[in-house]
Order: sequence, then C-alpha cells, then structure tokens
Amino acid sequence: MAALSSSPSFRHLLLLRPRLLLSPTCLAGSFSRRHIHGRRRLFSSASSSTLTHGEASSTHGDADGVVEVNPPRGTRDFTPEDMRLRTWLFDQFREVSRIMAFEEVDFPVLESEALFIRKAGEEITQQLYNFEDKGGRRVVLRPEITPSLARLVIKQGKSVSLPLKWFTIGQCWRYERMTRGRRREHYQWNMDIFGVPKVRAEAELLHAIVLLFQRLGITSSDVGIRVSSRKVLQAVLNMYFIPEHLFTEVCVIVDKLGKITREEIEKELISTGLSSEAVQGIINVLSLKSLSKLEEVLGSGVEAVADLKKLFSFAEQYGYADWICFDASVVRGLAYYTGIVFEAFDREGKLRAICGGGRYDRLLSTFGSEDIPACGFGFGDAVIVELLKEKGLLPDLSRQIDDIVFPLDEELEGPASSIASSLRKKGRSVDLVEDKRLKWVFKHAERINASRLILVGNSEWERGMVRVKILSTREEFEVKAGELE
Amino acid sequence: MAALSSSPSFRHLLLLRPRLLLSPTCLAGSFSRRHIHGRRRLFSSASSSTLTHGEASSTHGDADGVVEVNPPRGTRDFTPEDMRLRTWLFDQFREVSRIMAFEEVDFPVLESEALFIRKAGEEITQQLYNFEDKGGRRVVLRPEITPSLARLVIKQGKSVSLPLKWFTIGQCWRYERMTRGRRREHYQWNMDIFGVPKVRAEAELLHAIVLLFQRLGITSSDVGIRVSSRKVLQAVLNMYFIPEHLFTEVCVIVDKLGKITREEIEKELISTGLSSEAVQGIINVLSLKSLSKLEEVLGSGVEAVADLKKLFSFAEQYGYADWICFDASVVRGLAYYTGIVFEAFDREGKLRAICGGGRYDRLLSTFGSEDIPACGFGFGDAVIVELLKEKGLLPDLSRQIDDIVFPLDEELEGPASSIASSLRKKGRSVDLVEDKRLKWVFKHAERINASRLILVGNSEWERGMVRVKILSTREEFEVKAGELE
Repeated sequence: MAALSSSPSFRHLLLLRPRLLLSPTCLAGSFSRRHIHGRRRLFSSASSSTLTHGEASSTHGDADGVVEVNPPRGTRDFTPEDMRLRTWLFDQFREVSRIMAFEEVDFPVLESEALFIRKAGEEITQQLYNFEDKGGRRVVLRPEITPSLARLVIKQGKSVSLPLKWFTIGQCWRYERMTRGRRREHYQWNMDIFGVPKVRAEAELLHAIVLLFQRLGITSSDVGIRVSSRKVLQAVLNMYFIPEHLFTEVCVIVDKLGKITREEIEKELISTGLSSEAVQGIINVLSLKSLSKLEEVLGSGVEAVADLKKLFSFAEQYGYADWICFDASVVRGLAYYTGIVFEAFDREGKLRAICGGGRYDRLLSTFGSEDIPACGFGFGDAVIVELLKEKGLLPDLSRQIDDIVFPLDEELEGPASSIASSLRKKGRSVDLVEDKRLKWVFKHAERINASRLILVGNSEWERGMVRVKILSTREEFEVKAGELE
Repeated sequence: MAALSSSPSFRHLLLLRPRLLLSPTCLAGSFSRRHIHGRRRLFSSASSSTLTHGEASSTHGDADGVVEVNPPRGTRDFTPEDMRLRTWLFDQFREVSRIMAFEEVDFPVLESEALFIRKAGEEITQQLYNFEDKGGRRVVLRPEITPSLARLVIKQGKSVSLPLKWFTIGQCWRYERMTRGRRREHYQWNMDIFGVPKVRAEAELLHAIVLLFQRLGITSSDVGIRVSSRKVLQAVLNMYFIPEHLFTEVCVIVDKLGKITREEIEKELISTGLSSEAVQGIINVLSLKSLSKLEEVLGSGVEAVADLKKLFSFAEQYGYADWICFDASVVRGLAYYTGIVFEAFDREGKLRAICGGGRYDRLLSTFGSEDIPACGFGFGDAVIVELLKEKGLLPDLSRQIDDIVFPLDEELEGPASSIASSLRKKGRSVDLVEDKRLKWVFKHAERINASRLILVGNSEWERGMVRVKILSTREEFEVKAGELE
C-alpha cells in the first residue's frame, strides 16, 4: 500500500529488470503444441534465445544466486488474469458436474508407477514423468487420472453402492523432449461412471459434454463428437480369427492413423503377426462413416452395431443428436478401452481433440480386482481455451472490488482501519489504500473495477462522517461512518 | 445405474474385498502427526500390519498384477465426503481472500530445487521432496509456496503496480521417514502482500486470519495469535556485537525452543561462535511476554518495539486486539523472515501452530533481484480441521440433489432421457436412475438428499404425465411432463 511504484528506488529496480513477454492467456495453448516462452534469467537477457531450445539447459540458480524467473520447463505460472480464466473454466466443469449429479473426488498428483505400467506401447506410458523417491520407490507425476479413480473404487469396496458417478479436476504430467515447445502439464476434468454396463452411461457422459459446450456458447456447428466402439475392431479381429491378446496392441497402433502414414500403420500391424488380408480388413472398416454401412460389413447381430444404434437413439431422446456422428476411425490411444469410444473435435479441423473418453470394463482386473463396468472421459484445459479464443467466446473476467477505503491523512489510518473492518464484516470486498496520491487512487479504482471509493478526510471525520463516491455514476455524498452499508 | 450392487456377481466381488477402514475425515490429522492407515493390498490382508511400519516396503504392483489400493505413503485420496469438507474449507479461504481484496494466483507444484536451497539448517530444506528429472535437472515437489510467489513477482516486473495482494491455495510436499506416521503432503492457503514496508501489511494479514476464524465459528477464547518480531533478536545480537551474517542461523536455532531442550539450543548457539553472555541474553529476551518489559530491556528507540506497538494499536482499531498477544519466543522456522512474525495457536495447547507467517523484506535479493518489502502467511488444511472437529464446528456437508428421474419400465427410458435433459437445461441437478427396484430408489433418494422424485410410469405417460413426489413433505401429484419446472 506504500507508494513504492512511484518512488525513485523502485523505478531504479524496474529499469534493471528485463522486459518479460507475459502471456495474458497462459491457460490457452495446447498441452502438446503450445509454444513455450523463451527462458529468461534476471540480468542475463543474452541467454534467453539460446535457452529457448535445447533440452540440456539448466534451471539451477547461478553461482551468483540469480534464480530462473520462469517455472520449470513446460509448466505454467497462473497470474491473477490467468487464474481468473482457469477458475471460470473450472467453475463451468463443476457446474455441469453438479447438474449431472456427479460427486467430486481427488487424488495425489504423485502416484505409484505400477498404476500406469502397461505394455501396449501407448504414448502416455512412454512419456511417464517417473522417478525413484528417496525410499527407492518408483513413483510418477500421474499422466492421467482414470487409474487413480479405479484404485479408489477398489479401496472403497463395500462402503459405496453402485453406480458411482464421480468427477475430478486435476493436473496431469508427462515427460518428453521439449524441442517442439510442448507443455509438460495440463489440467483435466474427468467424469466417470462405475457400475453401469449399458450405453446409458455413455449417453449420460455425452450429455455432460454437450451441456458444457452449450454453457460456453459453443454450438454444434462449431464442434462435433465422433463416436465409435472398440467392439468394431474386435468384430473385425474375430472375422480373421486373430487371437484375443493382440486386441489392445492393434487398437493402440490403429489410433496412430493420421499421425503416421497408412503404410507405417500397415507395417506395424503386420509386425504383430497379422495377415495382410486382416490388415486390409481393418483399414477398410476404419474408413466407414455410416452405421448402416457398418451393419452391412459386420452383420446386424454384432454387439458393436447394437451398442452404437442404442447410443444414437439416446442422443435423439436427450436432444443432442446434432452433436454426434459415427466415425469408425475413432479408436483412442489408451490401452484399456473396451467398448464405445468418442472424442470431440472442432469442425474446422484446426485443433487437436477437445476431449475424449470411452468404456473401460476390464481395467479393474488388471489391478488384481474383480471388474466393474465403467466409462468416463477426460477434458483438458488447453484446446478448449484455444477454441473459445478463436470463436471470440472468452468472457470478460476483469477484477471486481466493492470498496476502496482511503485515508487522506496519515493520522486517519485508525478510523480507516475500523471502517474497512466493519465493511468486511458485512461481506464486502474492501481494498485499504494508503500512502498514495488521490490521482493514483482514482486510477486504481478504475483498474480494479471498484464500486465505491470511501474517502476518510479530516474535515468530515471531525463530524464523524466520511465521503463516498459511487464510481459508476460519479455521484458523491457524505455518510455517517457508522451508517455505511 | 444398473442394479449391480444387488446382483450375485457383485456380491461375490464384495466378499472378496478386505474391509478397509476408511477415514470419513481424511482431511483432518496434522501434516506432521496424523496416523497413517495401514497399507493394504487386495487379497493380501496379512501384509497390512507389516507394511504399516518400515520405510522400505514397496508400493509396486506385485508380479501377479495386484496393485496397492492406497495412494503413495503419506498422501491422501479425497473421497466425496473428504472432498466436500475440503471444498467447504477452501471456499472459506477464498471468501476471506475476496473480502480482503486479494487476487488468486497459482504455480506448478514442481519447482526448480534452486528456489529452495538455503543454508540456514531449516527443517523445511532438510526434508525436500527433491529428485533429478530425466533431463538432469534438480527439481522438487515444493515444500512451501512463498519462493514461487517471489519468483512470479520478479517475473511480472514492470507489468504490475505495487502493492500486490496475492493469495493461493496449493499442495506442499516434504520427504521424511514415515516412522512417526507423518504425512508427506498438505494443502496450504497463502496470503502475501508485496510492496508495503509498514506494519499495515501485517495488520491486514492478521485481519484476514481473524475473519477466517470468525467465519468458522472459532472465537478468541479458542485461539490466539502470538506475535513478535525478528528485530527483537536482531537488537539483542546488536547489543552483543554479533556479526550480521549469524542472524538467520541464530533465528533457525532459536525456533527449536520447545522442540529440543534449552541446553541443546544453548550448545547449538555456542557452536556458531556466540559468547555465553550473548546466548544468555538471547534466552532471557525470548522469555518476555509483555511489550513494556521488552521496551525496558531493549530501550524505546529500537525498531522492534516501535513496530510491535504500532501493530497492537492497529489491532485495537480493526477490533481484533483480543486475538493477539506479544510473545518474544515466536521466531518461526523459515530462514527468510526479517521483521514481524506470528503464529496462531489453540489456547488449550493441544495442537501444533494453526498458521504462521511474517515479514520477509530481503527474500528477492537472495534470488538476484532487488528487494521489495513483503509479508505473508501460510495456513495449512490439517490442524484447523482437527480443531474444528474438537470444537464440534465441522459443518454438515451431506450430498444434495434436486431431482431423481426414474422410469418404472425399460420402455420409458426415452421419455426419462428427455425429462432429465430438460430439467438439466434449467440448471437442476438430476440423477437418472435405471434398473433398480422402487425401494432402492427411495433409499437412494434419502441418502443423497434428493428434493423430488420424478416417476415415469406407463399409465401416466400415456396421458403425457409424470408422477412427482416431494420428498420432504411426502406430497405426491401428477404433472404434465412439459410443464415440469
């Protein structure tokens, strides 16, 4: 509250600082694609360009005690502006979760590595942010939240009755080389249902996603949700008598379609031991975009077809059919999906998947427990903000304060304290400002969107009064200090 | 939504699970003292007792794929009940921060180790949860948040005007042997003011702490705040011509008073090179509990006395004088404090400090930047919950839902979907239940505190109607489906 920003010593300090390029929308930018700002150190601007690239640069303090001002590579600070945006977004996640009658849970960001060790060659397990703790345990900064959810379901055991409808919002991590400026952490909203074997569960999750988009002002012409089922691939594998144990591996390979070439995919599939006819069969089915065509190829008795038909009929009944479409190429990259899988995409095709999920009926048995049918989705904080920015849908989230209390004289700091205290007791947000010039206070009031300015001056205070200025109307009047509301 | 909990296969599953003792108030229990539940694995109840103790036990999955159901040693899961309590507490932190006109910020839980390397022998830096990442960088799960705040202040530089009033709520970590069942993580509410050299800043922070206690129903007969200043020790050191560079070390040693014996403290002080007269002088001053006595010993011209007098006069004006008391033995364990220090304690003396803070005017220069006057506090989530529990002040935080929609016949799943969808569009929280018996639904409604039950039955639906039951009054009536509000 002291006038530091205008004092000579503080100005001197500012001149010494390099001008840092700060992103006002730090939340935006994909987990994977966002360009990381140049690494900068205080008093060492020359280093910023060389430190932008190259994995080996150190973030240690220098010998002279100069500390890196940026957070660790690939991570973010949230300034007040960034934080208001994040809070707003998380509030939307929470509000939709409340409307859908889900309960919030949370887990440590640090988990046992064993929870994420899977052998299917997924990107997510190849990029684990793992290390050994001082007790010799293998731990990770979790790359995703589903295994923790499953762990808690097992732990809760008998004490809860199914179905469980849980949501969580948490930070997830990965470790990979930063050459492409990819981020190492993001926040993810997860909604999961345990104990519902029918596609009703998927229908509910899709409803939640659509409700979220609608709250954000996004329409079904901006965004669509591609839906398929892993049972489609399963049916193809059955047609070619491919052994069960290859299923997961095939799913993970096939998910790379669009990221690597078709030839590479074929090669990888062949190397698992599939015949080239089977590979061709898989590739052909994946190109299907209509359910009737799928039924033609697989036959109508197939579970995949029945599930998908049921889900599309639910979509009609809920009223979100215009948001979803069948697309056999959707497989998703996580090893544990077993049934319906889906992902939301921007119809212009500029961005990565906005969210994704699916059914994972057999995850619990991989943890040594008995299975419970389950499905869920993860919805990151990065792509959605990019989309909102692009569509001009980011809300105005400026700061807002009820009152500024400003004593015009140092002697009046006592009365100013009592006034601030009594207004705060009433629940008003009060900024108590001292040692500034009146001009600064008015500018400050504008910057923080204060509703009122309460000036404590000598001539009024002698009569027990304060001066109130309503900042929106510029109305000004005197009030008895004790009668301030 | 399927009747899994009553199906034979699910019952079978439940029988296989060990009964786990779950804490309904997982949030409670101190960061340091809470007894950690026995480590249990599925199907391996014998291991629970041996695994409770001993550092070396592994949390890896067994060879047979059975995964540990507990989170990593010293960390917590938050079940829906735990989460409601945590959300309630954090909401109180946020509401007080709003009233005090502070802005929320956030930082990565992973930070560069350099930010926390200090040589004063603090407990906090001796228990760093640190490791080397795959890029060879020394990183830590942060033990506290203040250094990150300081880092962001430096990074923001010119783009912000002082004073800054920032708060944050985040998880902090430490690594130590778990033999005493101490926890390795806790959440901490931090409020910090940068740019205010006067004790007005401390007065504001104490106001925030008192407002929080009052919101929680805690009175000044339950809790007090001990206040002193490191300048007291500084003045004593000056009296004995002790060199400046020993100041921090002396503070950290003296903070151990009450944890180790007076003799050990004296020995440690002597080993830094202090004369036994100086040591005696320090010990004597630390026993003072009155400001007038302090003034007698140090003289009235000393800054420590002037600061403390000013702060106590502010406390009168704000109206929280009954909450605070002078106690020269308060030094706090962090190396970087330079002026006023304070900590809240339960007057019965059963618990550890509830929160603590102080002024740290010279932290930024240790990072190679120019100093900005600053002070702040950290308020953990553990001790406060213990206190609330002890005082019977924990609120009733049961689940609450607006509507349960229940189709009495499988054919009516379509209409049930439309009804749930239209109620959710109105912002009502709706649980859609299927494949259960009516008796279960009524019990469920009671358990989740539903306001209404909406039954979709064939005879009503033929007339476009649904049956509504208000659960508080047991009132029952029919409504046109389209007219449900």
